[in-house]
Amino acid sequence: MKGRLMPASPIRKLTPFADRAKAEGKKVYHLNIGQPDIHTPEGMLSAIKNADFKVWAYTPSEGTLSYRTKLASYYRRYDMPVDPEDIIVTCGGSEAILFALEACIQPGEELIIPEPFYANYYSFSHVAGVKVKPIISTIETGFALPPVAEFEKLIGPATRGIFICNPNNPTGYFYSRKELEQLKELALKHDLFIFCDEAYREFCYDGHKFLSPLQLEGLEEHVIIIDTVSKRYSACGARLGALVSKNKAVLETVLKFAQARLSPPAVAQLAAEAAIDTPQSYFDQVLEEYSGRRDLMVNALNKMEGVHCPLPGGAFYAVVKLPVDNAEKFCQWILEKFSWENQTVMMAPASGFYSTPGSGTQEVRIAYVLNKTDLANAMICLEKALLAYPGRKLDLTPSAMPREELN
Amino acid sequence: MKGRLMPASPIRKLTPFADRAKAEGKKVYHLNIGQPDIHTPEGMLSAIKNADFKVWAYTPSEGTLSYRTKLASYYRRYDMPVDPEDIIVTCGGSEAILFALEACIQPGEELIIPEPFYANYYSFSHVAGVKVKPIISTIETGFALPPVAEFEKLIGPATRGIFICNPNNPTGYFYSRKELEQLKELALKHDLFIFCDEAYREFCYDGHKFLSPLQLEGLEEHVIIIDTVSKRYSACGARLGALVSKNKAVLETVLKFAQARLSPPAVAQLAAEAAIDTPQSYFDQVLEEYSGRRDLMVNALNKMEGVHCPLPGGAFYAVVKLPVDNAEKFCQWILEKFSWENQTVMMAPASGFYSTPGSGTQEVRIAYVLNKTDLANAMICLEKALLAYPGRKLDLTPSAMPREELN
Repeated sequence: MKGRLMPASPIRKLTPFADRAKAEGKKVYHLNIGQPDIHTPEGMLSAIKNADFKVWAYTPSEGTLSYRTKLASYYRRYDMPVDPEDIIVTCGGSEAILFALEACIQPGEELIIPEPFYANYYSFSHVAGVKVKPIISTIETGFALPPVAEFEKLIGPATRGIFICNPNNPTGYFYSRKELEQLKELALKHDLFIFCDEAYREFCYDGHKFLSPLQLEGLEEHVIIIDTVSKRYSACGARLGALVSKNKAVLETVLKFAQARLSPPAVAQLAAEAAIDTPQSYFDQVLEEYSGRRDLMVNALNKMEGVHCPLPGGAFYAVVKLPVDNAEKFCQWILEKFSWENQTVMMAPASGFYSTPGSGTQEVRIAYVLNKTDLANAMICLEKALLAYPGRKLDLTPSAMPREELN
Repeated sequence: MKGRLMPASPIRKLTPFADRAKAEGKKVYHLNIGQPDIHTPEGMLSAIKNADFKVWAYTPSEGTLSYRTKLASYYRRYDMPVDPEDIIVTCGGSEAILFALEACIQPGEELIIPEPFYANYYSFSHVAGVKVKPIISTIETGFALPPVAEFEKLIGPATRGIFICNPNNPTGYFYSRKELEQLKELALKHDLFIFCDEAYREFCYDGHKFLSPLQLEGLEEHVIIIDTVSKRYSACGARLGALVSKNKAVLETVLKFAQARLSPPAVAQLAAEAAIDTPQSYFDQVLEEYSGRRDLMVNALNKMEGVHCPLPGGAFYAVVKLPVDNAEKFCQWILEKFSWENQTVMMAPASGFYSTPGSGTQEVRIAYVLNKTDLANAMICLEKALLAYPGRKLDLTPSAMPREELN
């Protein structure tokens, strides 16, 4: 059974402890999972209610032409050169990841991923028989792209691609144009695919302008974009994603995998098509909200003794270093043994986002998906918990980070 | 790229020819795909319209407790001993097939499937690295279960399971209790899994009472049921299936795969939960309709010279032997070169449902998913086409079948 080796989800593995805490009457702040509390756009919800058919039928395996046409117009707003025939609609971004790996990489071949990375990249690589070669990005650099020379050391004859997520889950890092250009050089020099998960395209702060590797000239045949409506429209339950590429051979292969599973969900396509007309004001408000949450959280964290949180440029996550012996133990302890005014916090131990053993043992991923009041309370809980935790361990080595503060 | 070896769907590969026929103004009767024209139950459609939430959120990876509880009550009506915790809700039956194979069979190990079989069993086996060992069921026996001795010949140290579909797609065969008992003996003797795709559970004709291998005593740890709402409620576009088992170790492993893709679709779960209250009169009407279509089709086919169609006991498919040199050529020819009163027929060449090369070359799969008027016209088209086809070839060997006729 492949399953025996399949890692459990780092985001969900502490769920039994959270459930027990709730059963004991504690309020648990869920900072462990990227389930936003933001409302789904009205137009998208109305489209569900207005779904008008007598037979809930399959759609084409690649998605309806109507939705793909509208979706292409959405990408054009980002100056991404996408036509309807470049898109294969998938059952969530998850399926797009799996299809991309299965279509582009033979079992036994290698994929480089900067770590920490979204844990399911590893799960889907495992399913596809793809070997993950992690390359460390460090909290010291705020999780910037590792130097080109480090990539070169890992690239060998079995290397087929590099997988990034931009803006990044779990680190919140926003890759600069310069970094994307570096990836381009590597891709062209070694004939590699660049897989780019752009689930958080809408979530770029501090005036950062989103840039997709699909916009880089000369890279058209190399880029596979993974997309989803989950975060953009707070529609995680729609299970609707997309794989986008200008590489026809890849699309042809992906289509065969898509045909085997027949069709992506039909109602979600109707709703996602309507969602593309969501007014800009919706996104402006969401961005302002998240940006405020981020500032609140980063400020609170960096004021705690021994805590270091780099400033995330996008998405709604941060990987945070805590003054603890072991973050996984701490995350379990805070659910099992701790409460402050009958409240506690669930976080995801960052070790699950690293594939190099022993990495990230003092780090957690925090998703700032709660409103500011809840988030502020969660931060108080965390601060009190860190002081009370028996395994508290202040790092006094030279690599201990200075605290950053926002104005 | 795994994809290079991935077979194209036999159900959809002639689509370009059908599209061209339509562009030329021909009416094409789609007998190639199991997309029913039956209306989805009102209660299910209302549940979509009444979906009432502000955030379209993930559900638990295994499906909502509410839906699994209701679904368990549905299985109980069939005397299947299913509890909510025995169910993992999936993105279509397709995903349940893939999860079952990935969780139960290591890459390189073997799975026995009576052929002809649903083509995507092969696709998903390919994805999971599972070796398919086909065992021929013949049109001469109406596609009954092959003799136990034939199974025994194939079972070796790498054999992990037997996969059946009951009632069968593509043959329409309904496995008897005796045949299921034979599978049970094999499973217990050789410690094998029995995978049973029960997508067509509701479609049993001639008073056949549905029986699941999950009901056979002593087989609890061995049985993995694949299910879907697609055909039961004519809701193929919902993309909602389920994997059901009493084997806790299997469920635990499947859950890891389910967690990697986060969640099954949310609105579909609401709708499918409502669908479980569909009145029996709906199913009675549907069954009467299909049973009438089946009789019309089987009678028409067996009256054509050189055509043989065994009487299907369930589902809404038949594998039919035609007096042609090559059914794939014929299926393309009828779309490209033929029309009768500006109409033609799309069928699925049966060779795509066999993995033994050279098998089923004179056979097609026909899905009787059209209303009786259309179906009767499609039969006239087919009869005229067979007479006009340049590759017409009447089989005069002793294995040529006598014609069956219904009263």
